[in-house]
Amino acid sequence: MRPIGVIHTPYKSANGTPIQARANRHCDASIEVFREYEEGLRDLDGFSNIILLYCFHRSEGYSLVVKPFLDSEDRGLFSTRAPSRPNPIGLSVVSLISIEGNILHIRGVDMLDDTPLLDIKPYVPKMDHDEGAKIGWLEKGIEGMHEIKDDGRFGVDE
Amino acid sequence: MRPIGVIHTPYKSANGTPIQARANRHCDASIEVFREYEEGLRDLDGFSNIILLYCFHRSEGYSLVVKPFLDSEDRGLFSTRAPSRPNPIGLSVVSLISIEGNILHIRGVDMLDDTPLLDIKPYVPKMDHDEGAKIGWLEKGIEGMHEIKDDGRFGVDE
Repeated sequence: MRPIGVIHTPYKSANGTPIQARANRHCDASIEVFREYEEGLRDLDGFSNIILLYCFHRSEGYSLVVKPFLDSEDRGLFSTRAPSRPNPIGLSVVSLISIEGNILHIRGVDMLDDTPLLDIKPYVPKMDHDEGAKIGWLEKGIEGMHEIKDDGRFGVDE
Repeated sequence: MRPIGVIHTPYKSANGTPIQARANRHCDASIEVFREYEEGLRDLDGFSNIILLYCFHRSEGYSLVVKPFLDSEDRGLFSTRAPSRPNPIGLSVVSLISIEGNILHIRGVDMLDDTPLLDIKPYVPKMDHDEGAKIGWLEKGIEGMHEIKDDGRFGVDE
């Protein structure tokens, strides 16, 4: 795995950072795609939403049972979106505002500044969405994602 | 990156394989999560849909401009879901049917048999979905995903 770019956001440390991109829809950010990959951005500007895969570069190690931000009980790691995982790959669907050369202007982010970008995919509801999906333990706490902020529990913090 | 499991599907070679998981909703498959990660599956059974991140283990190299399955024109790689990418990470949202120990029974797949699994995340519409997302060049061809099959253009085939 090699970074294809860097995500620039206002968030310098985990503590206080939004816990979900969609819970922070008005936050502008940008992606610098390295010049050698710029040609691959062609046609992306027709999509209003893009899937970012990136490296949770500040998380260290992982536990298979975690206390997620949106619940007070321990939960199996793979039933959560916690950043500390065996393969620390993050996934966020963000709004694509515009593209200028190798710079993507995006909106709605929860990544830390300088997060290494691994891939960009177009977000396509007919491929990615299931109306009526059941969300298990999250049902109870999902609305909390708009208020609750990261408290640094999963990562190294300065 | 290290596999946390293996995805077993009926598809032994790219040629003839469905091009999207959601275009193949009735196909049963299974995931063997390695025993050392089994504890992390706790609570996952409450979710009807899960996001799989996996390695496109049979793709080799990549091109920044590709002819996607759903169009006759060349498109920028990052505006497509083509499997040959700088970081060959695949993403599919599949239906979770049941969990028995370290085995997940799933439905709706487009991966090749023996695909190495990198991560499982719960699919949560309020985090991952945007109603009314615009899908650029795909608007024209999206319905074709139900009929068109992989013709091996992106991968090594036996």
